Amino acid sequence: MSLWTQARRSARMNPSIIREILKVTERPGVLSMAGGLPSPDSFPVEAMREACARVLATTAREALQYSASEGYGPLRDWVAERLNASGMAVQASQVLVTTGSQQGLDLVGKVLIDAGAPVAVETPTYLGALQAFNPYEPQYVGLASDGDGPLPEAIAALRHDAPGTRYAYVLPNFQNPTGRVMPHSRRADVVAAAQRAGVPLVEDNPYGDLWFDEPPPAPLAARWPEGTIYLGSFSKVLAPGFRLGYVVAPEALCPKLLQAKQAADLHSPGFNQRVVYEVIRDGFLDRHIPTIRERYRAQRDAMAQALARHLPDGCQWRAPQGGMFFWVQLPAGCDAMALLPLAVEAGIAFVPGAAFYAHAPDPRTLRLSFVTLSPLDIADGVAVLGRVLREHLDALAEATP
Amino acid sequence: MSLWTQARRSARMNPSIIREILKVTERPGVLSMAGGLPSPDSFPVEAMREACARVLATTAREALQYSASEGYGPLRDWVAERLNASGMAVQASQVLVTTGSQQGLDLVGKVLIDAGAPVAVETPTYLGALQAFNPYEPQYVGLASDGDGPLPEAIAALRHDAPGTRYAYVLPNFQNPTGRVMPHSRRADVVAAAQRAGVPLVEDNPYGDLWFDEPPPAPLAARWPEGTIYLGSFSKVLAPGFRLGYVVAPEALCPKLLQAKQAADLHSPGFNQRVVYEVIRDGFLDRHIPTIRERYRAQRDAMAQALARHLPDGCQWRAPQGGMFFWVQLPAGCDAMALLPLAVEAGIAFVPGAAFYAHAPDPRTLRLSFVTLSPLDIADGVAVLGRVLREHLDALAEATP
Repeated sequence: MSLWTQARRSARMNPSIIREILKVTERPGVLSMAGGLPSPDSFPVEAMREACARVLATTAREALQYSASEGYGPLRDWVAERLNASGMAVQASQVLVTTGSQQGLDLVGKVLIDAGAPVAVETPTYLGALQAFNPYEPQYVGLASDGDGPLPEAIAALRHDAPGTRYAYVLPNFQNPTGRVMPHSRRADVVAAAQRAGVPLVEDNPYGDLWFDEPPPAPLAARWPEGTIYLGSFSKVLAPGFRLGYVVAPEALCPKLLQAKQAADLHSPGFNQRVVYEVIRDGFLDRHIPTIRERYRAQRDAMAQALARHLPDGCQWRAPQGGMFFWVQLPAGCDAMALLPLAVEAGIAFVPGAAFYAHAPDPRTLRLSFVTLSPLDIADGVAVLGRVLREHLDALAEATP
Repeated sequence: MSLWTQARRSARMNPSIIREILKVTERPGVLSMAGGLPSPDSFPVEAMREACARVLATTAREALQYSASEGYGPLRDWVAERLNASGMAVQASQVLVTTGSQQGLDLVGKVLIDAGAPVAVETPTYLGALQAFNPYEPQYVGLASDGDGPLPEAIAALRHDAPGTRYAYVLPNFQNPTGRVMPHSRRADVVAAAQRAGVPLVEDNPYGDLWFDEPPPAPLAARWPEGTIYLGSFSKVLAPGFRLGYVVAPEALCPKLLQAKQAADLHSPGFNQRVVYEVIRDGFLDRHIPTIRERYRAQRDAMAQALARHLPDGCQWRAPQGGMFFWVQLPAGCDAMALLPLAVEAGIAFVPGAAFYAHAPDPRTLRLSFVTLSPLDIADGVAVLGRVLREHLDALAEATP
């Protein structure tokens, strides 16, 4: 199509591999541990139904009309109060309601990234964030990371190795894909390093409420409010199909983010914002979220047991303390991408970890979600994974003279 | 805030004047003809209520879950069928559901505009499109236009005057802000000129269903499907608060648009898509839209009468054949921006036309919306406008020796 050859050709805009992978893994009959979907059993359908009816009975004209780009006032107030209870100090005027927190990532990229500018990300990091930032064509700098998150010295090094880094994008709580949580002391060190390096932080927290054993430490934004953009979401604690999240930014950035939001979709659906507010205004989440934690904890336990029982020697993982994912490193010589078609053939699916790296993927890694399958299906699925992996290792051993 | 000085500083990202104007015009007690809001009396609240209840009763788990970035299948099918009835030849696979058609504009800009690339727009054009394209930093080329739309020779000239123009953005039906409709013969000439110049078209059609006298001619996309991206919306025929629109693109562009959509917000709310589909699936719009046309036609007539009666000599306008707006040119020497504070003081509001130009605004123009006020309020409001304008003209005459 010569007519469209002037369309932007950035390599970063090529069709994503992950999309193709997920298509394969969503075949009927496949037990999928690939998706990042919350369990539909956790959706508060009855509360949603009541709230929809109430909004349409009382404020239909406002809910169905165009509304403010910033978001619905009472919902912004609620978000500010909730975050302040977690240790932050936020004004409602700093809260921008977005069409899922994915849109928050897009707006952050739109406002802060010029083509070629350095952006630092964890190793590995959330694939959807890379997809959101890619159209603005950053130069990614991978931050060396361990089981506690990015290394403070890697952030400190940005000052010299990547001057002008726009921000470091971090997921301190039950990170997607690794499930890791940043401990208290690491948070202090990461913030101190970022402050010294003059590198702002973008803190993404979709999973923070989904802790199993104890709540995670206070957000990075509580330590450094003027240097941190914070993103939250209702997708994991209510339902993703309403597409609501929020960005909390330092006052200095709010006008630019608001303008980018208005340009992007004018505003997030006012109806949805009012319905969600109706659902949560009376403390519903404090009753509802513990039921999600119970459910996910049991599934986490089932997967931890099954992995210990079925995976061969040489595999490594840590049971996550919250969130939705296990991150597994396969034995030396394995390639999760090569394993995937064999696994799908045998009836189970996962996401190869390579998709989550900005640079130099570790081909031995894979991500397993435990929240959409029952504990029994998890046990069955992991048993299949173990069997396929053993066969794969045997085949590799035979092929190697 | 030195920390954020690396934020993009493009002049095009500065806080928008229009936002400030609308704030002023929304004062309590002011009769506003400034907004671009559809009449809330036209919102089908009862049908929405039934559809919400039905979706939550039958498919809550799917409606509240993450869903496909392309949009809800039956809704995409419906859009394709509907457009094909208007003369287009569209496959459902070409339909991308968006978070309002504003998001369609953002995605088009994201996929097609590199910084500095020429983008052609009508004179004047839809302000929200300029806002959507601005973050991608195009060089706007203003297309000389008359009461029938952009001049074909202006499009033909792009070939030499602005080589590499990414697209020409046009609103053939009851354009915002002028209300003009592109007649049959102009459509043929515009498409022929664009084809010869090798310049793709982006056709925005939020108002096409709101005709008062006769339906507008077939879309430009029907004449040149492989060279035209078409945008539609449910905001003006159902309700804007659900934020649903769609983009129809040539097959060659669909993967890039889809990828940009996924990066922007993963998908538009699946709940909303299912509710809207439930509302419209049985032909509801064919019964509902005529009631909107009746309402708006009466308001259009009231404003046409009032303008003829109250505006002083030297003002020019044409009664629109559809849509939501009158476009008025004031007598020589007037500046609508200077008139606005006087009008607001007297209790009425409009939008100065200058906001709608990419270059060289005509300061004598202003936009009046007729759809949110009753015919009586329209008569009163225009009478006030006429009085304020006469006083302003008198003052101008006195000030000029």
